[in-house]
Amino acid sequence: MKVYLDNSATTAVDTDVINEMLPLFSLFYGNASSFHSYGRQAKKILEDSRQKTASFIKADADEIIFTGCGTEADNIALFGALDAIGSKGRIITTKIEHHAVLHSFKRLENLGYEAVYLNADKNGVISLDELKNSITDNTLLVSIMHANNEMGAIEPIKEAAQIISEINKTRKEKIVFHMDAVQTAGKIPIDVKDLGIDLLAMSAHKFNGPKGIGALYVKSGTKISPVMFGGHHENNLRPGTENVPYIAGLAKALEVNINNIDENYKSAALLKDKLQSGILKSIPDISINGDSKTNLPYILNAGFNYIEGEALLLKLDMAGIAVSTGSACASGSSEPSHVLSAMGIDPVSAQGAIRFSFNHCNTEKEIDYVLEVLPKIVEELRKMSPLKKV
Amino acid sequence: MKVYLDNSATTAVDTDVINEMLPLFSLFYGNASSFHSYGRQAKKILEDSRQKTASFIKADADEIIFTGCGTEADNIALFGALDAIGSKGRIITTKIEHHAVLHSFKRLENLGYEAVYLNADKNGVISLDELKNSITDNTLLVSIMHANNEMGAIEPIKEAAQIISEINKTRKEKIVFHMDAVQTAGKIPIDVKDLGIDLLAMSAHKFNGPKGIGALYVKSGTKISPVMFGGHHENNLRPGTENVPYIAGLAKALEVNINNIDENYKSAALLKDKLQSGILKSIPDISINGDSKTNLPYILNAGFNYIEGEALLLKLDMAGIAVSTGSACASGSSEPSHVLSAMGIDPVSAQGAIRFSFNHCNTEKEIDYVLEVLPKIVEELRKMSPLKKV
Repeated sequence: MKVYLDNSATTAVDTDVINEMLPLFSLFYGNASSFHSYGRQAKKILEDSRQKTASFIKADADEIIFTGCGTEADNIALFGALDAIGSKGRIITTKIEHHAVLHSFKRLENLGYEAVYLNADKNGVISLDELKNSITDNTLLVSIMHANNEMGAIEPIKEAAQIISEINKTRKEKIVFHMDAVQTAGKIPIDVKDLGIDLLAMSAHKFNGPKGIGALYVKSGTKISPVMFGGHHENNLRPGTENVPYIAGLAKALEVNINNIDENYKSAALLKDKLQSGILKSIPDISINGDSKTNLPYILNAGFNYIEGEALLLKLDMAGIAVSTGSACASGSSEPSHVLSAMGIDPVSAQGAIRFSFNHCNTEKEIDYVLEVLPKIVEELRKMSPLKKV
Repeated sequence: MKVYLDNSATTAVDTDVINEMLPLFSLFYGNASSFHSYGRQAKKILEDSRQKTASFIKADADEIIFTGCGTEADNIALFGALDAIGSKGRIITTKIEHHAVLHSFKRLENLGYEAVYLNADKNGVISLDELKNSITDNTLLVSIMHANNEMGAIEPIKEAAQIISEINKTRKEKIVFHMDAVQTAGKIPIDVKDLGIDLLAMSAHKFNGPKGIGALYVKSGTKISPVMFGGHHENNLRPGTENVPYIAGLAKALEVNINNIDENYKSAALLKDKLQSGILKSIPDISINGDSKTNLPYILNAGFNYIEGEALLLKLDMAGIAVSTGSACASGSSEPSHVLSAMGIDPVSAQGAIRFSFNHCNTEKEIDYVLEVLPKIVEELRKMSPLKKV
């Protein structure tokens, strides 16, 4: 049996999405910047997709910019907004962001910005008081992820936006608020106006769309500069011939997921509960990282004491089960997860952490199989483990 | 009849390329950074594609970085190489580059670099003497396109590289030489070692691959920094989950074209000759922009005196024929082509320029149809033209 439980790393492209994209490769293949009928046709598909994408997050069409991936959307949000502001100052994010934000912040520090990294509590949630206290007169930008990619903690975005908005009332140069929604777009309802954010990044391949396409929401009136230079595409913010098939694919993938958002949510919650209670029942010495009652049902992060997560991953893989030890984008790094560290989980326990991440394509049968295989593998690995207390 | 003669703007994706990509959307969809079998499978496809792409330009696999488009490849080449050098100085390009390079140069000027724009002669070819004389002690980088996208002039890249290499012998900090190969990759043989370049940008959708994927050749030993920040993908030079389907598609599209490079070249030359001689025979007061004997056979740029190129484009479009007035990426701009201006073509004549661009998919029958329709449209438009001398 093959069981893919690494859906926070990437998902299979939905059949409806593939069918939406297929004719755009060889039949309606015009360059959306061309004036002839091939071009106008491509332009229409592009603008319809923009409208559709916008509607799913309650934005206006002209507030959506398509990008080459979620990382690029985050980069344009951060570097583009700061470049448009034009002066150096304080920028605030959290210790548990994805590397697309964290490594951008490191770069910005090198460029002379003063970066502040907010702490997360044991459940991976930031403190609004710490945010409030961190905002100084020279603060330019705040970037907080909607939900964390390693254990699914949902951050208090609306409350953070209210704090920023309150402070902005007394300021001439407004603080810009960016939200990385890579783990939530298509999975939980997003209303950008209700949340009160200025910028939002999403990535299609996290919600059954293709890899290599993302979108950036830029609230009307938000000043932002391009980070790459070329043609006048995407409202002068992102040059490069528009990838119309993938853009249509992103919009379709959002549609497919959002049309079933409640069912998908419930299905993920059911699978997660089943897996979590099954693990807790059958395997001793484990911990659940994060508060699985309040975080995203799409992610379960479990710590298996006395073993290495990587060894467990490989054994599960041999049994046909795909999971991860954390973010795929951080793979290859020997350091323990920066997210679990920020939550106060000690390095040795963090080494034994496994992320199971779900999609509506997963089934209860698959979870049954995992629960059949996993306890044996854990026991076997623990027998060999030098970490195991005897 | 529908005739697509705007292949320098974009091409239809080849059927073999679509077939190569299809299973990668929903069957072999792993994240190439994941450690499990789905991920390793994706990684293998990624590395095989890298090897294949490299081999087609006589590079080594680890010299190829996949990017989100040709524009991004140009941007990483220019900003990345200069960031790695670390100091400001002179940078040299030509007046006839694509906006991906020209607008990057404008940005670099704003950042404090001294930009020099080489002239082109009446055929669109730069002067090697002017290049030589422009290189100063503080020159950091030279960027010259392989062939121009508006009229197909092929630039003396190898000779330029020799000049730079000669100067580099006496310098500690070497001048970096970048070549934009967006119009030549897959169309004429490229041997990066023989040409003597350090960097090369290509874009799949110009050679029957998908839009939204490009590649950058970085000669081993060339110092280059990323321009976006995130995960450790693509040798730490381009973050973002790898778009494996499109990367495999790019490699396949190169293969498909390069396996038939001579036949395709001859076929394009035949179509271009047929169209050019047909136009010259049947339409008075026209000029061919560029030296059609020495430039790429894939592009024919013709100036139709006394009429607006845009009006001609729209009339041809109504007859089912897709052409362009220049670069699609510059569409929407009311300014005359910067390329034709640089070649000394007066603005009024440049307004009447039309680019016909060919692909191996085009047929002689299609050219017959164009030659049947075009003279009538030109005559009709000239009758109404206020520019026409009576």
